[in-house]
Amino acid sequence: MITEIAQIDVKPGMEKEFESGVAKAAPVFKRAKGCRAMRLMATVERPQHYRLLIEWETLENHTVDFRGSADFQEWRKLVAHCFAAPPSVEHMSEAVKGF
Amino acid sequence: MITEIAQIDVKPGMEKEFESGVAKAAPVFKRAKGCRAMRLMATVERPQHYRLLIEWETLENHTVDFRGSADFQEWRKLVAHCFAAPPSVEHMSEAVKGF
Repeated sequence: MITEIAQIDVKPGMEKEFESGVAKAAPVFKRAKGCRAMRLMATVERPQHYRLLIEWETLENHTVDFRGSADFQEWRKLVAHCFAAPPSVEHMSEAVKGF
Repeated sequence: MITEIAQIDVKPGMEKEFESGVAKAAPVFKRAKGCRAMRLMATVERPQHYRLLIEWETLENHTVDFRGSADFQEWRKLVAHCFAAPPSVEHMSEAVKGF
């Protein structure tokens, strides 16, 4: 299982439109191959600064299957006009399970 | 509920010692007031680059209660010698629930 953590900064004033676009995109991720979960987090300290957390069964489910799909364009169509800069993406695996 | 996302970069070669320190620190967080969950994620693309995700009932459970407790020193004692730089911390709240 891989967790994608995308840092997304949106243009001032576009917060609600961005959040609405992400909510509309939930079905796009839900039908994506290997996608198990997604949620959007907003930073307490910095408005316009978000992190999108998405769980994929494999790295390739994101980097190959999803990015190569028509649904990737659908996702961008819903939210890309809100971006202040290109999102930066990390892929993470669990190192310590914790509790 | 607040999710703390700490970016932690460790010194080269200290990865296993850091992960072991975090595993040992799990009980420290488990007994912390308002702490509901913690897990350590390792970046696929960049060795030595980690993110610690901790769920707190309130922001103050982290910034006031935990940071002001003796257990904060205990946590630092277990892992701080592995840090390549001071961790950077964000506090996030859920903006879109997703699935």
